[in-house]
Amino acid sequence: MKITANSAATANGVAGPLSRVFAPVQPQLDEVDRRISAQTAAFDPAIEGYVAYAIGGGGKRLRPLVALLSGGATGTLASGHIDLAIIVELIHLATLVHDDIMDEAERRRSQPTVNARWGNSLSVLLGDVLFAHALNLSTDFDDTHISRTIARTATEVCSGEMIQTQRRFDLQLSRDEYFRIIGMKTGSLFACAAELGAVISGAPDVVVRRLRSFGAKIGTAYQIYDDCLDIAGTESETGKTLGTDLRKGKLTLPVLTLLESASVFDRERCCALVLEGKLAEVTMLLKNSPADGALGASIDTAAELIRTAQAELAPLAANGCVDSLFALGEALHEMLEQLRS
Amino acid sequence: MKITANSAATANGVAGPLSRVFAPVQPQLDEVDRRISAQTAAFDPAIEGYVAYAIGGGGKRLRPLVALLSGGATGTLASGHIDLAIIVELIHLATLVHDDIMDEAERRRSQPTVNARWGNSLSVLLGDVLFAHALNLSTDFDDTHISRTIARTATEVCSGEMIQTQRRFDLQLSRDEYFRIIGMKTGSLFACAAELGAVISGAPDVVVRRLRSFGAKIGTAYQIYDDCLDIAGTESETGKTLGTDLRKGKLTLPVLTLLESASVFDRERCCALVLEGKLAEVTMLLKNSPADGALGASIDTAAELIRTAQAELAPLAANGCVDSLFALGEALHEMLEQLRS
Repeated sequence: MKITANSAATANGVAGPLSRVFAPVQPQLDEVDRRISAQTAAFDPAIEGYVAYAIGGGGKRLRPLVALLSGGATGTLASGHIDLAIIVELIHLATLVHDDIMDEAERRRSQPTVNARWGNSLSVLLGDVLFAHALNLSTDFDDTHISRTIARTATEVCSGEMIQTQRRFDLQLSRDEYFRIIGMKTGSLFACAAELGAVISGAPDVVVRRLRSFGAKIGTAYQIYDDCLDIAGTESETGKTLGTDLRKGKLTLPVLTLLESASVFDRERCCALVLEGKLAEVTMLLKNSPADGALGASIDTAAELIRTAQAELAPLAANGCVDSLFALGEALHEMLEQLRS
Repeated sequence: MKITANSAATANGVAGPLSRVFAPVQPQLDEVDRRISAQTAAFDPAIEGYVAYAIGGGGKRLRPLVALLSGGATGTLASGHIDLAIIVELIHLATLVHDDIMDEAERRRSQPTVNARWGNSLSVLLGDVLFAHALNLSTDFDDTHISRTIARTATEVCSGEMIQTQRRFDLQLSRDEYFRIIGMKTGSLFACAAELGAVISGAPDVVVRRLRSFGAKIGTAYQIYDDCLDIAGTESETGKTLGTDLRKGKLTLPVLTLLESASVFDRERCCALVLEGKLAEVTMLLKNSPADGALGASIDTAAELIRTAQAELAPLAANGCVDSLFALGEALHEMLEQLRS
């Protein structure tokens, strides 16, 4: 498979294992990239430059990938799939701009974040215009079911982010609540991409439901990967500020697992370290606690989710896109294993 | 006309002159108020309380008023008009939550702002969920023209806010640019409310265009009123933090007029006061500069806009709602005159 130097698949250092799953839809993904760049023209000239900066950073385009692969897995790719792919990525980019404000993150994709460059006020509004524009594009679908699903998903993503923010530094957060939060903030947009990819292909309801479920599970597993990366990754490889979850009181799966598995005495010490945001100490505990550590246990959980996601694909007639959806799970698994140390 | 103590028309102190225009659509506005309160149930229980706080502050419900009066001016009010009224108000409320973050405002409608109460992070997300929910509701219209117009308007409102933020402390801002900004951030949502009110009533295109133009003009005049209020109002009467425009470098019509009319020497002094946010000194200059002052001149400009808005109504067959749209202009005029000193 040929991946050009500038293609989405290689724009980000961590995308190595992912790159092989892009092949069946590479021309369409290139088109998505071109059309995302062209979206700047839809904005007022006074703000075009900011929009270009926010959407121009590359990124892995995972949500567009899932939308396109799901479309190709269940039918023939059409212009509606490209539109869907653009919309889900714009929603994602809008949430990133707002996330970086909340995390006070300095770098994303090896560039200064929008808030680091132009301050919080402008970032709030830039996130808003990207978000509004995405929902604007979604109303171009004549099938109102599609625009409704996108709008509902946008509400769910924002609600998930909000609950997460509300529960920061809350050591009572349960594992179930964590899964509900990441299911809303990340799983739902992957689920929407996969579901509507199949809807646009005219797939029967039973297949649409399977793909939706695949998207929700793979998206959730990806969020666990991202949460583990924030602890176990390196900034030079990921190009973004790491350790922000702990600093900002976001309790992610590795930390929850650590707290669960600790003895009463250790738990108190762990809680204190977590609340004080002692990144180095917590990371060491995550890697070294019994039974391969809380980090390893989280990786196992994500791997199991990937397996259940892949199982949803079993009844589909095999083609290149179905294979790639399966391979997306494998790639994510590989990325997770690389974090184990 | 009977206005109950808790009705939207009297919820805000400055709404005195406005209250008389609510009569023809009071039952529908009460329904809008009830349904806006009921929207909290559409959110996850974990965030319902925040949503209730953000939408429960009352407010003048001007945009719903315009949507309903426009609908009644051109046909019979139906459930679609209520839906429209709720959506435009929710978009407005979402922008207020984000505005208050940027203005670092402490009080709105005599209550602590969302950011003052729960911080900026939660406020960013609360604005997002309200915004997403409004666009979500808009996709329930079967007529995609309606949801498209609403989504396009949302993008325009956010773009206007963004250009305004970008041009803060920019003493080169021209009067034309000011009008373009307030036309986008405020005029467009009033225009959308008036236009779609008529669309839902099945009005012919020529009438829809007239109502859209009425909305754009009355909305722009209302923004000029709000900008003058920020300088000439009192916090006890308005229930919100005043003087924020100047403190935050937002150059509004009275300030632009002052700078335009100042001699070269005075202009330098004015610019310095504006950039330093010297509220008391600038307010004195605004009221006392030659020819009745820059504040008076701004009030004249808004009054002229109101007259051109009212002229759009002339060809409409008279009924109670047409009369009230006209009276809305009169009430706004009266509110403006009260700021003259």
